[in-house]
Amino acid sequence: MAKEKKMVEAITSMDEDFAQWYTDIVKKAELSDYSSVKGCMIIKPAGYAIWENIRNELDKRFKATGVENVYLPMFIPESLLEKEKDHVEGFAPEVAWVTQGGLEPLQERMCVRPTSETLFCDFYAHDVHSYRDLPRNYNQWASVVRWEKTTRPFLRSREFLWQEGHTAHATAEEAQERTEMMLNVYADLCEDFLAIPVIRGRKTDKEKFAGAEATYTIESLMHDGKALQSGTSHNFGDGFAKAFNIQYLDKDNKLKYVHQTSWGMTTRMVGAIIMVHGDNNGLVLPPKVAPTQVMIVPIQQAKEGVLDKAFEVKEVLSNFRVKVDDSDKSPGWKFSESEMRGIPVRVEIGPRDIAENQAVLVRRDTHEKITVSLDEIAAKVGELLETIHHDMFERAKAHRDSHTYVATTLDEMKEIAENKPGFIKAMWCGNQECEDKLKEVVGVTSRCIPFNQEHLADTCVCCGKPATKMVYWGKAY
Amino acid sequence: MAKEKKMVEAITSMDEDFAQWYTDIVKKAELSDYSSVKGCMIIKPAGYAIWENIRNELDKRFKATGVENVYLPMFIPESLLEKEKDHVEGFAPEVAWVTQGGLEPLQERMCVRPTSETLFCDFYAHDVHSYRDLPRNYNQWASVVRWEKTTRPFLRSREFLWQEGHTAHATAEEAQERTEMMLNVYADLCEDFLAIPVIRGRKTDKEKFAGAEATYTIESLMHDGKALQSGTSHNFGDGFAKAFNIQYLDKDNKLKYVHQTSWGMTTRMVGAIIMVHGDNNGLVLPPKVAPTQVMIVPIQQAKEGVLDKAFEVKEVLSNFRVKVDDSDKSPGWKFSESEMRGIPVRVEIGPRDIAENQAVLVRRDTHEKITVSLDEIAAKVGELLETIHHDMFERAKAHRDSHTYVATTLDEMKEIAENKPGFIKAMWCGNQECEDKLKEVVGVTSRCIPFNQEHLADTCVCCGKPATKMVYWGKAY
Repeated sequence: MAKEKKMVEAITSMDEDFAQWYTDIVKKAELSDYSSVKGCMIIKPAGYAIWENIRNELDKRFKATGVENVYLPMFIPESLLEKEKDHVEGFAPEVAWVTQGGLEPLQERMCVRPTSETLFCDFYAHDVHSYRDLPRNYNQWASVVRWEKTTRPFLRSREFLWQEGHTAHATAEEAQERTEMMLNVYADLCEDFLAIPVIRGRKTDKEKFAGAEATYTIESLMHDGKALQSGTSHNFGDGFAKAFNIQYLDKDNKLKYVHQTSWGMTTRMVGAIIMVHGDNNGLVLPPKVAPTQVMIVPIQQAKEGVLDKAFEVKEVLSNFRVKVDDSDKSPGWKFSESEMRGIPVRVEIGPRDIAENQAVLVRRDTHEKITVSLDEIAAKVGELLETIHHDMFERAKAHRDSHTYVATTLDEMKEIAENKPGFIKAMWCGNQECEDKLKEVVGVTSRCIPFNQEHLADTCVCCGKPATKMVYWGKAY
Repeated sequence: MAKEKKMVEAITSMDEDFAQWYTDIVKKAELSDYSSVKGCMIIKPAGYAIWENIRNELDKRFKATGVENVYLPMFIPESLLEKEKDHVEGFAPEVAWVTQGGLEPLQERMCVRPTSETLFCDFYAHDVHSYRDLPRNYNQWASVVRWEKTTRPFLRSREFLWQEGHTAHATAEEAQERTEMMLNVYADLCEDFLAIPVIRGRKTDKEKFAGAEATYTIESLMHDGKALQSGTSHNFGDGFAKAFNIQYLDKDNKLKYVHQTSWGMTTRMVGAIIMVHGDNNGLVLPPKVAPTQVMIVPIQQAKEGVLDKAFEVKEVLSNFRVKVDDSDKSPGWKFSESEMRGIPVRVEIGPRDIAENQAVLVRRDTHEKITVSLDEIAAKVGELLETIHHDMFERAKAHRDSHTYVATTLDEMKEIAENKPGFIKAMWCGNQECEDKLKEVVGVTSRCIPFNQEHLADTCVCCGKPATKMVYWGKAY
């Protein structure tokens, strides 16, 4: 058992050094690798398969709400990027510029899209004419580039994969409805599919998207008590429509501006899965997103009939994503490898099990072992995957709730921020000065103004003036 | 019926002006639109949905052969692009260069990938160590950029979507096997899924991929007699491995270079579908790739019971991709719209049909009308879709075969090239001088050296020296 011990030992404990623990899992579970392109990552098969499952599930849920996929160019001419004032200020400092095409310098430089609002607006401006053309519920799966100074695999990378939805509506109400609908699609995906509980709410004006009227967000809490913005949905009102002149002829024969939204989720969710569910043995994958849900490990596989039985069991479990590890490694090595990769259920089966018509199921999340009859293994594995999803969600929620604190004074807030990593709920007057001060003095940013408001106090935690909102604060990725 | 007549009239006849006919279909069937980014296209929902179906089907077929998906950066540092001499010469003149990231100029400029051999090689050089790490059968779905001077939607665009597979193997034999395997995956997809017959063969050295030892291709013939290279698969031997130093420790404890392949298929297949199957009424989609396979058009839909029945039939046909057009347009308008969009089967159902418990199926490809009982409509539609696929393939094949000519002398070849658009089969001595001369004098390029060789003559069609190969020649997109 020396080898697999070494494999596990090679992971830094998360209590010792969380950042290193994260990096170790990324490397050891073979999710991603560094590339020769500074700040850009390579997504390896194990990491890409997770993203692929997220993508397929999201895409299905988008389409169920009437969304259609399209593809727009990856380049944005500088003059187009500059059309909406707030937007260009937000993005221009962090884009990559293409200045030469083929052997000749470009007449106008273009950036690689950091996001595609300007391209969609330019498209809608000549594609939308009448109320009959609305709504436009378009989405694209693409990669985008933001020239970040410090990067980390999945969490912050100069290039990342995402989807960006861009819609145009006849009325403000419809746009608001779509904005909230998509936030809920993200929230439901996180909770139902990734077993990650989220807080749904709105961003403060300071934290909203460059050019948006309102940004909505879902925020999740990592093991280390830091928050991760996990999906955002923006209502642009008619700001972009006015900048790009996107008008339609309404039923009343009047020209009106459209109302727009955009919404996105990225490969950083792979990072969220690591940091919400992982443990000191490696990755722990929620069953619904796991590329392999069940790994069958034959014991004494050289003995006659063992491998045959293992593949027989695989057949029986073919409703799940199941593999047999028939490599020439030792069972112990296989155990620790399947642990490292986060496979939800391991099936151990050897000569003695076969003699008794049974197998042992081992849960990745709790290490619990359950002996089951081979006659009912398919049903048992199905139930177990459900249970694991449920338990993982509840554990993540319990962790979040036990790391959510209330502060009613600035001193209290400072004390919590210094000693207790997690969310801090506190009242706020609504002024950006207080937000700025909390960042400077306490070191936290506003994560969101949750839809579920609570009345914790009458006054702002910072300035003592009358409070208007309860806000989640925290340190964030 | 005036409106729909107008809609159809708006398409240029393919016999009058094939290029304009193509452009009209792209626009009228809403497949693609021009963008403000010169030379880059917008893929609209109807076009993207076709690509999505091709992608999903190809991806499934790739995975069945053991391929895994990954994602590598979109940028290539100049020094990396330059590592393989032939490769850089082939691609450097047509790439887009990024020279600035954020507010600062880059120390080394990077191009946006035109293809990713160099990135995969750089990755494999540090990722592959032992024979146990082989084979690496990786693929990525991505967009690439080639700075073309003249562009056309789907056929030639400065940015296009594709997949690129990049594999590394222990032996030359394995690499050759993979190269041919993937060419066959493409060929089978074209024939079984897109109803497009292809010629499988090898490119001449002149036409092979920059840096490859051998390039294999599938070639299809468009309505206008021009060829379209529809998928390529390259065997690199160990050329790239030597340039990038990709070595592995073999079982015999010796360091050896890997053998590599790459293979790709692109969004230009959407263009192939248009130009192989389309007619003067618009797009004609092969049933398997059609995003909507069946469009139900209710007749006199305002009459009680008609719409209900239409949606009932939709339920009955739910094994297919089926829609009801319940818009307020006239039936005639709906007919011509569903024709324009290429939907394989239209179901017409009105009060009289309902009274007789029947509906009329209309084939897009032949306009044939078939009255069927509602009791057996699901089975009949299933059979009809099969028949349509089969007939579309056979028609395309008959067209290709009747536009494939044999030339044994240069004069004969010139005469054919001038008057009979299509493939020209002719013997070749194997020298590039003759290939160059045929391009200059006859205006054709070598499309491929087909696997199915025929002996048409003893001598080269160009120089009269002994022939070594039978080659397909033609004008190409």
